[in-house]
Amino acid sequence: MHATATPDRPLPITDVAQWYRETDVIVIGGGGAGACAAIEAAAAGAQVILLEAASDAGGSTALAGGLIYLGGGTPTQRACGFEDDIEDMYTYLLAAAGPNADASKVRLYCDNSLEHYDWLTHQGVEFKPEYYPDKHTNTPNEAALMTTGNEEAWPYSAIAKAAPRGHKPRIKGDHGGIPLMANLLRRAREQGVEIICEARALTTIVDGEEIAGIVARIDGKECCVRARRGVVLCAGGFIMNEEMVARYAPRLARGNYPNGNPNDNGSGIRIGIGAGGAAINMHEGFICTPFYPPHQFLESIIVDDSGQRFINEDVYHGRLGSAILDRPDRRFYLVIDSRHFDVLERPPLGGYPVAGTGETIEELETELALPEGTLAATLKTYNQFAARGEDPVQHKHPKYLVALDQPPYAAFDLTPGNGAIYAVMTFGGLDTLPTGEVLTVEGNVVPGLYAAGRNSAGIPRCAEGYASGMSIGDATFFGRLAGRSAATRQ
Amino acid sequence: MHATATPDRPLPITDVAQWYRETDVIVIGGGGAGACAAIEAAAAGAQVILLEAASDAGGSTALAGGLIYLGGGTPTQRACGFEDDIEDMYTYLLAAAGPNADASKVRLYCDNSLEHYDWLTHQGVEFKPEYYPDKHTNTPNEAALMTTGNEEAWPYSAIAKAAPRGHKPRIKGDHGGIPLMANLLRRAREQGVEIICEARALTTIVDGEEIAGIVARIDGKECCVRARRGVVLCAGGFIMNEEMVARYAPRLARGNYPNGNPNDNGSGIRIGIGAGGAAINMHEGFICTPFYPPHQFLESIIVDDSGQRFINEDVYHGRLGSAILDRPDRRFYLVIDSRHFDVLERPPLGGYPVAGTGETIEELETELALPEGTLAATLKTYNQFAARGEDPVQHKHPKYLVALDQPPYAAFDLTPGNGAIYAVMTFGGLDTLPTGEVLTVEGNVVPGLYAAGRNSAGIPRCAEGYASGMSIGDATFFGRLAGRSAATRQ
Repeated sequence: MHATATPDRPLPITDVAQWYRETDVIVIGGGGAGACAAIEAAAAGAQVILLEAASDAGGSTALAGGLIYLGGGTPTQRACGFEDDIEDMYTYLLAAAGPNADASKVRLYCDNSLEHYDWLTHQGVEFKPEYYPDKHTNTPNEAALMTTGNEEAWPYSAIAKAAPRGHKPRIKGDHGGIPLMANLLRRAREQGVEIICEARALTTIVDGEEIAGIVARIDGKECCVRARRGVVLCAGGFIMNEEMVARYAPRLARGNYPNGNPNDNGSGIRIGIGAGGAAINMHEGFICTPFYPPHQFLESIIVDDSGQRFINEDVYHGRLGSAILDRPDRRFYLVIDSRHFDVLERPPLGGYPVAGTGETIEELETELALPEGTLAATLKTYNQFAARGEDPVQHKHPKYLVALDQPPYAAFDLTPGNGAIYAVMTFGGLDTLPTGEVLTVEGNVVPGLYAAGRNSAGIPRCAEGYASGMSIGDATFFGRLAGRSAATRQ
Repeated sequence: MHATATPDRPLPITDVAQWYRETDVIVIGGGGAGACAAIEAAAAGAQVILLEAASDAGGSTALAGGLIYLGGGTPTQRACGFEDDIEDMYTYLLAAAGPNADASKVRLYCDNSLEHYDWLTHQGVEFKPEYYPDKHTNTPNEAALMTTGNEEAWPYSAIAKAAPRGHKPRIKGDHGGIPLMANLLRRAREQGVEIICEARALTTIVDGEEIAGIVARIDGKECCVRARRGVVLCAGGFIMNEEMVARYAPRLARGNYPNGNPNDNGSGIRIGIGAGGAAINMHEGFICTPFYPPHQFLESIIVDDSGQRFINEDVYHGRLGSAILDRPDRRFYLVIDSRHFDVLERPPLGGYPVAGTGETIEELETELALPEGTLAATLKTYNQFAARGEDPVQHKHPKYLVALDQPPYAAFDLTPGNGAIYAVMTFGGLDTLPTGEVLTVEGNVVPGLYAAGRNSAGIPRCAEGYASGMSIGDATFFGRLAGRSAATRQ
C-alpha cells in the first residue's frame, strides 16, 4: 500500500494485508442519497456498512431546506386541491434539465414519483397537507406544498402545465432537511445498517476489473473494508473544493456562498474517476441570488447596465442568478417604485445594497450611470404593456405585471461583488445508469461500483432550469435504486 | 488481449505477445500538434513513430484557415508597421480564455511567441508581410496578418492594447492550413519520423503505472507498438462524435456545421481517460456564426425578439455565436438600412435568410413580430448615440457606428434552425502540464503519457473569448513541448 491511499491509485486486492471489516455493501456518505441507498440495500437483504466522514451522518441534505420535488398527483397535492399529471411533470423536468438532460432518469423518476412519496412517508417523513401560495425560498410555516421552480414562468409555462411540486418534510420554516434525515437515518439503523462516523473513504480496492472494497481512514488509520457485492458512492458534490471548482466548474467560482457542508469536497467523484468512472456535466451547478422574498420584488423590473430588461422577473431565483453570472462584464439593478417601498423596512434576503433613488426615473437612471434615456425607455415600454396585462418583451406572468408609475424610484444593486448573495453548488458527477451503475468513458459498467446524489450526474443538470427539490428528490430516489442494485448484484 | 482493445481497458504489458514495432516516442495523430511533437521529439534525438488514422496525415489543421495567433512584435507585425507587446498579448489571451484559463500555459505561450514564429519559419512556413485591414474570417489574398479576435471589441478593447496577431501561412485565400501542414510534415519526414497511415490507436499498453506503448489497428490487425520513452496523444477533438458531444458538450449539439475531419472522434481523449488522465473543460467549444463578411454588417444592429440589442456588433463571430446559442428561447435578427443594401447582391457568408423588410422601422418590427415599439425604440436610441459617435448601450467601436436612418430597412434571420450557419468544434481535453504531461484527477502525472492539440485543454477555453489562430497556435507550440518532453523523459 502507498504511504497514503489516493483516489487515483486504486488498491489491488492482492495488496490487502488484512480486512478491517467485510460486508455486502459499502455506502460512502450518510446524506440523503447514502441513507436511502443503505435502507434499500438492507431491505434487499444485504449487510450494509455506511462510512460517514463527519462526526455524524446527515450530509448536506440535513442542512438543506428539505424540499423534495414530487408530483403526478401526490396525496399532498390532492389534499391541497391541485391536480397534476405525470406527463406534465416529465415534460417540465426534461425541459428544466436543459440540453444535457438524462431522459431515462427523468422518465423513471416521474413514473415512480407517487411510489417514492409513499416510500418516504413509510420511512416516517410527514408532509403537512397545506399549500403556501407566495414566491419564497421555502414555506415559512409548516406547510408542505409550494411551487419551487419555473413552472409558472416563461418559457417553461408554455411547455407544460404548472403544478406546485415542492414537498417539505414537516417543520416550521426553513429546515426541512432535519426531519427528513432524522427519519431516514433512524430507519437505516432500524434496518441494521452499521453507520461508522469519522470514516473517510480514500480509494477503491480492485479485484481485476471489479470493485471489491474501500480503503478508508478510520480512527486515524488506513483500513480496508471489503464489499462482497458493491460500493455505493454518495459522498456529495465538490463545491467546497476550491481547486476542483476552479478546474471543473470555474463559473461557480464567482459565487460567494457555497451551499453544502465541508465534506462536499468531491472525494466520492474523484474516487469514482480513479476507479475508471467517467465524470460528466462537471461545469454545471446551482447559482442562486434570492431576490425573493419579498415576493413584491416580482413586480420590479431587473435591468443590466444597458438600461434594458433581460429576463422575466418572475423566474426562480436560480434562473436569475445564472443569467447574471453568465454576463460578467455587466452591472445589474432591481428597480421598484414607491408602491413597493414597504419592503425597504427589512433588507431583501439577497443582501442587495441600495444602488440609487430618484424622484423621477431619469434621475435614477443618472444615479445608476445608465446610458441616457435607456431606463426611461425601458420603463415606458414596460408600463405601456403592463397596463394591458402583457409583457411581450420578457414574458412575465400577468399576475406580477404592475405599472411602475408611482415615483420616487429606488434600485437595488444585484451586481456580483457588490454585496449580493450568489449561492452555488455543483451538479456534475459520475455518469451512471438509472440503476446507479457507474459507467466508463466508453459507456461500460465498472462492476461493483455505484453512485447517487451529487456523486452522480442526476436529474438537475443546468443552472437555468433548476427548481428547489430536484436535488433531494433525485438523491433519495436514485440513492434507493443504487442501494438495491448493489445489494442484488449477481 | 480482449477481442477488441478499447480505451477504457489499457493492456497490461505482460499480456503483449509480440511487439509489432519498438520506438522511443509514439505520436498519435498527424495534425498540427502531432507533426510538431514528432519534429521536436526527433530533433531531441528520439526515434519517432507517428500513427495516423487517416490515409494521409494533416488532420483538421490541414483543412483549416491556418491562422496562427502570434504576437509581441513578430517580424510580420513589424514589417506591417504594428507594434505589439508580450504583456498586451498575455493580458488579452488570459481574458479571452475566460474563467477556466490556464495562466501558466498562456504565460509560456506568450513569452515564447517570437521564438515560435522563428521556429515555424525555420520549418519552411512563410508569412507574407502584408496586412489585411477588414473584418473577415481569413485574409482573402496572400496577406499574412489580420486581426482575428475581439482585440478591438469591448470588453477586451478596454483590457489590453489591441494588435493584429493572426498570421496566415502564405497562400491565396482561405486554406492556410495546406502550406502549414505541407511544411511541417515534410520537415518531420526529413527528421526521420516514420509516419504510418491508416493506423488507428485503440488503447494504451501499461507497465505498472507507466504508459509503455499503444495498441493500434494497422492493416486491419491489432498491433502492439512499444514506446520506450512516451506516447503523445495528438488525435484531435471530438466534434464528430455525436455521442460524446451529447454527453460532454451538449450546447455544441445545437451547431449545424461541425468544424474538423471525421477522425475528430475523441479517441485520443478517451484513450487518455482510460489511462487515468483527467479531462477538463469538456463542455466548451467554438461556436461561430459568420455574420461577416461582408464587413458592412458590423454597421448593423443585431436584436433578439425582445426588439433589443444584446451585443456589440463588432465582436468576433464566435462571440456572437456563443451569445446566441446561450439563449435557445429567442429569435435573432440582423437589421440594416438601405445604405447597406449593396451587400444583398451576394448572400452573407452565414447563410442567413431575409427575415423581413419595411419601408419604416415600424413596418419591419411588425413583419418580424417584435413587440410593438421595441425595435423602433432600440433604433432611436442607437441612432441618437451613433450620431455622437458613441454606443454606451453595447459599446461598439465608433468606427462602426453609423446611424441606420435611411429606409427602407431589411432584416436577416440569425435564429439557429432557420438556415444560419453555426460552426462548432470542441475545446475540452486532457488536463496537462505545459510540458504536455497528462494529469490524473488528483493532479499526479501519468508517467509516459503526453497530450497536445485538442487532446488536451490548452489556450482556448471558452466560446465567447475565442480568436482565430488560438487553436493552431496552441497545437503547434504545445505539440513541440510535448514531443520534446516525451523524448527526454528520464
